Amino acid sequence: MSILVVGSVAFDTIETKHGSREKCLGGAATYFALAASFFTDVRVIAVVGQDFTTENEEVFKRRGIDTHGIERSHGHSFHWSGSYLQDLNEAQTLKTELNVFQHFNPKIPKAYMDSEYLFLANIDPVLQLRVRQQMPNVKLVCGDTMNYWITGHLANLEEVLRELDVLLINDKEARMLGGTDNLMRAATRVQEMGPSAVVVKHGEYGATAFFTRSIFTTGTHATEMFHSPALPLSDVVDPTGAGDSFAGGFYGYIASQPELTPDVFKRAMFYGGVMGSFCVEQFGTERVQSLTRADIDQRFKTFEELSHFA
Amino acid sequence: MSILVVGSVAFDTIETKHGSREKCLGGAATYFALAASFFTDVRVIAVVGQDFTTENEEVFKRRGIDTHGIERSHGHSFHWSGSYLQDLNEAQTLKTELNVFQHFNPKIPKAYMDSEYLFLANIDPVLQLRVRQQMPNVKLVCGDTMNYWITGHLANLEEVLRELDVLLINDKEARMLGGTDNLMRAATRVQEMGPSAVVVKHGEYGATAFFTRSIFTTGTHATEMFHSPALPLSDVVDPTGAGDSFAGGFYGYIASQPELTPDVFKRAMFYGGVMGSFCVEQFGTERVQSLTRADIDQRFKTFEELSHFA
Repeated sequence: MSILVVGSVAFDTIETKHGSREKCLGGAATYFALAASFFTDVRVIAVVGQDFTTENEEVFKRRGIDTHGIERSHGHSFHWSGSYLQDLNEAQTLKTELNVFQHFNPKIPKAYMDSEYLFLANIDPVLQLRVRQQMPNVKLVCGDTMNYWITGHLANLEEVLRELDVLLINDKEARMLGGTDNLMRAATRVQEMGPSAVVVKHGEYGATAFFTRSIFTTGTHATEMFHSPALPLSDVVDPTGAGDSFAGGFYGYIASQPELTPDVFKRAMFYGGVMGSFCVEQFGTERVQSLTRADIDQRFKTFEELSHFA
Repeated sequence: MSILVVGSVAFDTIETKHGSREKCLGGAATYFALAASFFTDVRVIAVVGQDFTTENEEVFKRRGIDTHGIERSHGHSFHWSGSYLQDLNEAQTLKTELNVFQHFNPKIPKAYMDSEYLFLANIDPVLQLRVRQQMPNVKLVCGDTMNYWITGHLANLEEVLRELDVLLINDKEARMLGGTDNLMRAATRVQEMGPSAVVVKHGEYGATAFFTRSIFTTGTHATEMFHSPALPLSDVVDPTGAGDSFAGGFYGYIASQPELTPDVFKRAMFYGGVMGSFCVEQFGTERVQSLTRADIDQRFKTFEELSHFA
């Protein structure tokens, strides 16, 4: 079934100790869409500038992603510059040029209205809510956010949280939003704000989901938690987009399945980890662009062997 | 089969936000022995002072632990005082009184010489080596260490590492010992120092083992890594002894099995997580003292459901 994603399609300038890239294709919606495209149909709502080339669009099209919702606007595309030279786990933002993104007003093409799954990537909660309200009949709503919106735009974020079924969030941000260092209690408080499931991403330590069983369309589960591993890597070339790739693998797999059972949810978390692990192996979207479904299935097996006993 | 453990049997004075305890029974060998005793026979080598009471010894005896190797010496037992008020993840040491431990010279009773498994708990590497050399014919040697020995006594520690099959170590200390922030490369460097397997404990994020297949007596495994989860807890009452309880569950289970297969190793890591999760639920050894094997099996199932799909 189809996922509609709204978020940023942007250019990133990145430096890590493995090298650098100047204005390579990036943005949360891009990473999400590419990762999810290996599992299901994906439609993108975003805004880009005149610097967005046919070649850039081809990256989406080669993966069968519907780009009709990518609006062309006068000016430059959103441009983020970041460095991981100080800390591989947390980007140091050098420059944020919103450009055409500053006046982004998401418009949903008619042909997108039958999308069953909605993903609200990390953008201004005001825009997330606006999209959500135009799509009242989707089967499931999943969203992402970040510290910037938690600290500065909490009231707006809370309105979005009430509309979410699943929130994907970083470890640190979950503790910040939940107002406690204890992860389990933080997740419980975030659940009380709306989402039935909170998937907390721990980076190199995997991810933990906290959920109420009402999230499942069928099936039961004794505990209200899942844990999935991350793949230890001897080299992380560029962490940019790892979280959005996780989201794409996670949500893409869910959308590809007829029911949301506990088992589907769990496997989705593993596929999230799989897509995140590929993403960081090369700069930007390079690795995910060259992936095959066979690569993904192979790595899924590695994740299974890493964490399961006979 | 029997495990011989050498380490500290001590008294701990602990404060956490949940309360405090004055001179409660503690020490790495104590936590290890209690946890391992649910799986196999355990023999302890340690030194205590005249303040070690019959009641203290009964804690071991009730669990069937052999205490003939606990030497009584003139003076007070090792006494550690620590606080977790600042940081639940890292104890702030308020006082360390070595007392009789200062002149500890481990002596191995004749009846202990047929022990098949040796555990060198976190003590001076000089003493770890001395015990190892007196037990040349054990099937497997497992050890623990800490930052104090890595930074100040590295040459001695390196001699111990050459003698280990399995090293259990904290995340931070693994990176310190391996000399790199990348966990996988750190673990590889530590393996080059001796141990075929390095089990890195991530606290609330579980544990990851890096190993060469030569550690197994039978069976093969595609990846040279395992990951096991930790149980999210809404309250950690007292983290003291969690790592040693992990070690006891891990090594106790291994010693209880006829062969060290990949599957046994993996389950052992889960039992380690199980015993660690119980330990932190109450102060000191209180929770582990009241445990039953049925509690352990039940929680093992919870760990399995937390991490495995169908």
